[in-house]
Amino acid sequence: MNDRLDPSLALPDLAAIRAAHERIRPHVHRTAVITCAALDAEVGARLWFKCENFQRIGAFKARGASNAVFSLDDDVARRGVVTHSSGNHGAAIAYAARRRGIPAWVVMPEGSARVKQENVRRFGATIRHSGMDAASRAAACAEVERDTGATMIHPFDNASVIAGQGTAAVELCESVPDLDAIVAPVGGGGLLSGTSIAAKGLRRDLLVWGAEPANAGDAAQSFRTGKVEPLPAGVTLTIADGLRTPLAPRTLGAIRAHVDALETCGEDAIVRAMRMTWERAKIVVEASAAVPLACLLEGRYPAAGKRIGVILSGGNVDLERLPWQ
Amino acid sequence: MNDRLDPSLALPDLAAIRAAHERIRPHVHRTAVITCAALDAEVGARLWFKCENFQRIGAFKARGASNAVFSLDDDVARRGVVTHSSGNHGAAIAYAARRRGIPAWVVMPEGSARVKQENVRRFGATIRHSGMDAASRAAACAEVERDTGATMIHPFDNASVIAGQGTAAVELCESVPDLDAIVAPVGGGGLLSGTSIAAKGLRRDLLVWGAEPANAGDAAQSFRTGKVEPLPAGVTLTIADGLRTPLAPRTLGAIRAHVDALETCGEDAIVRAMRMTWERAKIVVEASAAVPLACLLEGRYPAAGKRIGVILSGGNVDLERLPWQ
Repeated sequence: MNDRLDPSLALPDLAAIRAAHERIRPHVHRTAVITCAALDAEVGARLWFKCENFQRIGAFKARGASNAVFSLDDDVARRGVVTHSSGNHGAAIAYAARRRGIPAWVVMPEGSARVKQENVRRFGATIRHSGMDAASRAAACAEVERDTGATMIHPFDNASVIAGQGTAAVELCESVPDLDAIVAPVGGGGLLSGTSIAAKGLRRDLLVWGAEPANAGDAAQSFRTGKVEPLPAGVTLTIADGLRTPLAPRTLGAIRAHVDALETCGEDAIVRAMRMTWERAKIVVEASAAVPLACLLEGRYPAAGKRIGVILSGGNVDLERLPWQ
Repeated sequence: MNDRLDPSLALPDLAAIRAAHERIRPHVHRTAVITCAALDAEVGARLWFKCENFQRIGAFKARGASNAVFSLDDDVARRGVVTHSSGNHGAAIAYAARRRGIPAWVVMPEGSARVKQENVRRFGATIRHSGMDAASRAAACAEVERDTGATMIHPFDNASVIAGQGTAAVELCESVPDLDAIVAPVGGGGLLSGTSIAAKGLRRDLLVWGAEPANAGDAAQSFRTGKVEPLPAGVTLTIADGLRTPLAPRTLGAIRAHVDALETCGEDAIVRAMRMTWERAKIVVEASAAVPLACLLEGRYPAAGKRIGVILSGGNVDLERLPWQ
């Protein structure tokens, strides 16, 4: 770990990501890397997709959650873990807690997607419902911590979680050693932080690009201004529901240090990229996972002719309601 | 080739399938084999899915069509190829003909799925529409043959096509050498014929099971009676639109010789298996490709605890109209 004076800014280094990789190996899949000639032709570059939609619980979040849960000392772990999550991180904590045999509580906003609630319950975690706002979520988590002694594992503002998320990029670089760039989506920034630390740690000249919905374009703005910007006022309307989250100072620090470009795309482009991934590559990805391809299709990066790794973050979709219908 | 006296019954042997494999290697993908712990748990067996939904044109049909097209002598090939197909075989012939630089005509019934028509046009083939009945299709093909000198390549009643389809099973057995059984869907029987010849040629004790929709249960009946039975009278109502085809004497011969069980499943089971593959394995498969899993989920084979290869035949789906909606 890179021990800064302020622990709220501490970040993992490549060694911590490698240690995380060893720690979580029994608990997560080494996911497939696939290619698709039709998508290469659409983008005008060669793409390698790291299929975290095939990951345990259907998203990369299994990596960070497993690393955080298995990093706890036994006497702390025994009292359980708590988190808040609109979905995939909650399922990931539930999954990792069951693997370790400890209790888990997940605070979720009312009205979360059915499939994401089922993903949490499947692993025996207890769901606590809260309001949509950050204060309501934090209060519900604090209540669980107070009542049970459980350890809070934040979805992204946590160095162990970030280290775990970085392991996908390590595997991608092992599978395809000569990439020019890696693209990852950004919500709270855990995945992009871990990806960028891993990528630059492995090869200084490997480009790292972030991709965000314009309708939740706070990270792109924070990247420019250098301070954590809030989400646009009012309800944030993006189909990429995993990315409706502002950065933390910790993740902004990693992203400012290691990311080469952070670009945004519109909702139509996200739906188009999601549908194209289903139709051409024949895999199920959620809207948040399609944001990097959307930015590539929109020409947001200097991608032409390059060899590009794309992290497909997850595949948890409510099949009753598809965005193009 | 196994040269019988009656050429309409000729079948490839394992050597012909291996030769096909070499011939088509530059033109088709060696598709991924994936596993899914959640589906293993549902079936109570270990499953390896051969992902022909990732194949060129989105279906295994690229194998047989490529083998047939690239087996033609130059002076014959030059005049082009013609076939009839409700979809995937047509796209496969169009694809293979473009790879060889020769013209192709595809006779399709009016009202074929949009995505399947686009798949044919994408490769520059000419579509000729016909009625739904076999006589109308055959007449349209004969007209093209007469007018152009093109060679007819039947979707399954063709030894070169069957040899090509068998290459998927060869790859599956290379990837997972210790399978107990392989399951493939059956419509006209080209895939199941090739699969069973390859499997038994590689290992006499490897079980081969066929899977068919009960609503188009002619192959299961033919398997019992030993003669080619017609489709049930009237319109055949199955969502598995790739499997609405009777066997030919040729494919029945292979299936009777090499297949250990041929079972059927209901429409609800097909929809459930298709949806489960999307939700759990996160891959897009068409209804016909879900028929083997449907039969496994329904307990139609002695599968418990076995190691089973499942050929996922294709992934061409109209995403506007999903069967569970």
